[in-house]
Amino acid sequence: MGGGWPGRACADRPAKAGSSASVHVMAVRTASAHWQGTLTDGSGTVRTGKGGLTGNYSYKSRFEEGEGTNPEELVGAAHAGCFSMALAKLLADAGHPAQSIDTTAEVNLERVDGQMTITRITLRTTANVPGMDAEEFAKQAETAKATCPISRLVAATEVVLDARLAAAA
Amino acid sequence: MGGGWPGRACADRPAKAGSSASVHVMAVRTASAHWQGTLTDGSGTVRTGKGGLTGNYSYKSRFEEGEGTNPEELVGAAHAGCFSMALAKLLADAGHPAQSIDTTAEVNLERVDGQMTITRITLRTTANVPGMDAEEFAKQAETAKATCPISRLVAATEVVLDARLAAAA
Repeated sequence: MGGGWPGRACADRPAKAGSSASVHVMAVRTASAHWQGTLTDGSGTVRTGKGGLTGNYSYKSRFEEGEGTNPEELVGAAHAGCFSMALAKLLADAGHPAQSIDTTAEVNLERVDGQMTITRITLRTTANVPGMDAEEFAKQAETAKATCPISRLVAATEVVLDARLAAAA
Repeated sequence: MGGGWPGRACADRPAKAGSSASVHVMAVRTASAHWQGTLTDGSGTVRTGKGGLTGNYSYKSRFEEGEGTNPEELVGAAHAGCFSMALAKLLADAGHPAQSIDTTAEVNLERVDGQMTITRITLRTTANVPGMDAEEFAKQAETAKATCPISRLVAATEVVLDARLAAAA
């Protein structure tokens, strides 16, 4: 597999004046939410534009233990998915393609000085990588954590990584 | 409806040494991803822990126009959902509960100097709020944009807001 993220640009846009950054628009993704009523008595629906995933959410599913989804677990799914894909790329580039990668994201929602705040995301990953040694694997996992687009999106928040090889060399 | 975000703390944890911050753990949400194979030839699944949403994703569904979901639209769903809920709270607190709020999030994925990067999230919201004037509505929408937990999570990234009243006073 070749190095680098995909280079097929869908469309280019001019870089900012005075900037020499190379910018290529790859995709614009959409999702939507519908909410009815007040915070505690209302309810809502979220829907992804392309994947067609739909879920209900409410005060109870977000802040208590009611049924339904919530923004925090959607962010967790995004992060676990992004990290796993990035790690698959890095391992293959290093000559050790993974057979499988399983990642769980835990998203901590805390009330900090009165504000509901996502204070930490913990990524726990286990990979099945024939012939790979643990040290090199840990290095690639740290790189995936540092560089995947969702990690960089949430750069203001602490991200913790627990990476394990299912089958060491 | 009372002011403030939910105050019922599930568990407290000690604030950092030397910090006077009040911290209450509200929830830990989980989601997972499974990936098999290399970046371009492999495929994966994402799953939310509580909502039970499941979707397939791949190189094609993320960087091209293949079927399936991708981390960017999951983040969009999280942000649209979070913003809508926060705006519902603010409007009710201001004495003008919304009948309905519809928000679309557009998530831009661009290749910046070789790195796939989420460069911008655009929130487009339309709310049906009996008796509310446009100026006050715009102010509340800006506050929701600035303060909702997902906006603060992605604080390193530009967030653009387009807020419209479906029925002005």
